[in-house]
Amino acid sequence: MKTEKTLLALDFGGTKLSAATTDPGHLAQRQWLERTRVFSAAGKDAQTDLQEMIRASHLLVKGAAPAAIGVSFGGPVEPQAGVVRLSHHVPGWENLLLKRLLEDEFSCPVLVDNDANVAALGEYRFGAGWSALSLLYITVSTGVGGGWILNGKIWHGAQGMAGEIGHTAIDPQGPVCLCGKRGCVERLASGPYMAQDARQALFDDPAQGPELMRLCGGLLDEISGEMLSRAAYAGDPLAASLLGRSAWAIGTAIGNAANLLNPHRVILGGGVTKSGLDWWQGVESAARQTMLPEIDVEILPAELGDDAPLWGAVALALESLTLERR
Amino acid sequence: MKTEKTLLALDFGGTKLSAATTDPGHLAQRQWLERTRVFSAAGKDAQTDLQEMIRASHLLVKGAAPAAIGVSFGGPVEPQAGVVRLSHHVPGWENLLLKRLLEDEFSCPVLVDNDANVAALGEYRFGAGWSALSLLYITVSTGVGGGWILNGKIWHGAQGMAGEIGHTAIDPQGPVCLCGKRGCVERLASGPYMAQDARQALFDDPAQGPELMRLCGGLLDEISGEMLSRAAYAGDPLAASLLGRSAWAIGTAIGNAANLLNPHRVILGGGVTKSGLDWWQGVESAARQTMLPEIDVEILPAELGDDAPLWGAVALALESLTLERR
Repeated sequence: MKTEKTLLALDFGGTKLSAATTDPGHLAQRQWLERTRVFSAAGKDAQTDLQEMIRASHLLVKGAAPAAIGVSFGGPVEPQAGVVRLSHHVPGWENLLLKRLLEDEFSCPVLVDNDANVAALGEYRFGAGWSALSLLYITVSTGVGGGWILNGKIWHGAQGMAGEIGHTAIDPQGPVCLCGKRGCVERLASGPYMAQDARQALFDDPAQGPELMRLCGGLLDEISGEMLSRAAYAGDPLAASLLGRSAWAIGTAIGNAANLLNPHRVILGGGVTKSGLDWWQGVESAARQTMLPEIDVEILPAELGDDAPLWGAVALALESLTLERR
Repeated sequence: MKTEKTLLALDFGGTKLSAATTDPGHLAQRQWLERTRVFSAAGKDAQTDLQEMIRASHLLVKGAAPAAIGVSFGGPVEPQAGVVRLSHHVPGWENLLLKRLLEDEFSCPVLVDNDANVAALGEYRFGAGWSALSLLYITVSTGVGGGWILNGKIWHGAQGMAGEIGHTAIDPQGPVCLCGKRGCVERLASGPYMAQDARQALFDDPAQGPELMRLCGGLLDEISGEMLSRAAYAGDPLAASLLGRSAWAIGTAIGNAANLLNPHRVILGGGVTKSGLDWWQGVESAARQTMLPEIDVEILPAELGDDAPLWGAVALALESLTLERR
């Protein structure tokens, strides 16, 4: 039996798995029928994650077949074929035919894409990107990634790598990124890199960040991006300076992207975007300074939060039905 | 009488006007039926340029009506309406209804776009961009501009400003650009800015560029981008250093654009790209260093040279026929 209109959304994140269902009657209100966190032996291997996700999915659709499935995967994907290239977090995903496997399991159309693209699509269809003719979605979190929606579609690019705004280089004198370059946006703006720079600065001179020292109780390894936000809010000069640099980097990258592609909207999500008003004002200010005066791009906070990949997966499920009808 | 298949291509450049005709039988060989330089009281005003261009066009089509007209305009344009916003070189173009005016004059469909976009389209349809699913065209000349072709169409962006790669910022310690920012690609890479920096350096210390001093005969105002290329070829260290910085800036900007959009091809045209192998190797090297290793973008020299806007105008003329048929 087929539950005619149930759409199944799956999110294989780097550190957690989620699944949810909705249907046309609940889409307009952006409501889930059911939503579940899937527990797996965290990061053990692809097969375990996959089996747990499939088991949870059958429970969600009550043993029937969903109308379509959309999948957000936390790693590079061949979107046409729905093949996972690899996961940077979990072993065993190399060249796994995820689309085919789920089509066989659930006898319905499936579309798979990588999480930044799917989150961009989610914000476009159901969030802050609603109705924008084009948008750049940026997540500023443990890394800095992004995705493009152009003319209502995910833009993948030649090797499926479009959206890597975190590895655009904006300062040849900047610190060295893991990718080997100096002054990458991710190196200047992401949570873990900010925390790393804070640790180094406090190791060199603890007086630079008194509030940060207090918050971490002198244990530099405890410093996180989130702790930096709290310290900056309390007036810590080191934390404020690192967050200011992060905002400058994100704003400059947005301004460069605006000059290059002139998108209608830019949407920012991820943990670092919760750092408060100063950070947002820093982003806005650097973006405006970088954009040509003729250019005007709305910069908005993401609306869907951690659910952006799941809602994007719903949009993929809907798209798979349109493709099937052709 | 209508000359059924004659396509008329018009190029309103910043400093010169050109017009040409072709037809389906000559397109495959990329041949003009006729091509003419239109002489006008250079840069006097929009009306004079327009009247001279119309007169020359009637001569080219021998008093009959062309099947369609494509227009490349050297300045910002509203492409849908075919309205010129302004020219930075010639007065009187403000808000001129160029499309409507030519439609009335020649009784045929007309499409108008700005020169960087039209040149990009020309290279895509008839030049080095042939068959590429997406491309970024960059002209490195008196300025640094560009245009995008995505899915076979010019990408304009929200305010029609897409392609302004010359004003992406890549060095916060760089020299100040006319736009007010530090380290714009145009400030680091264009011919006139390189010449300006050479003049300043030689004014400060003539020994820095002995070959350049010889070539300009000690008259610093005579230094041009083209002279820098010749001096660098003869081993002048100052000229080589400025061209090296230009290549670094263009390559870094290409690498950033590749990370951001992952286009299939990048095409470089304009005077500075004729600076020789060292410049091209510098571009390629900086681009590869900036791109993520998963990304691979062909960087090719433009094929159509100064005719790129005219061939792009032919592509626009063809497009106007397709639109009319709908």
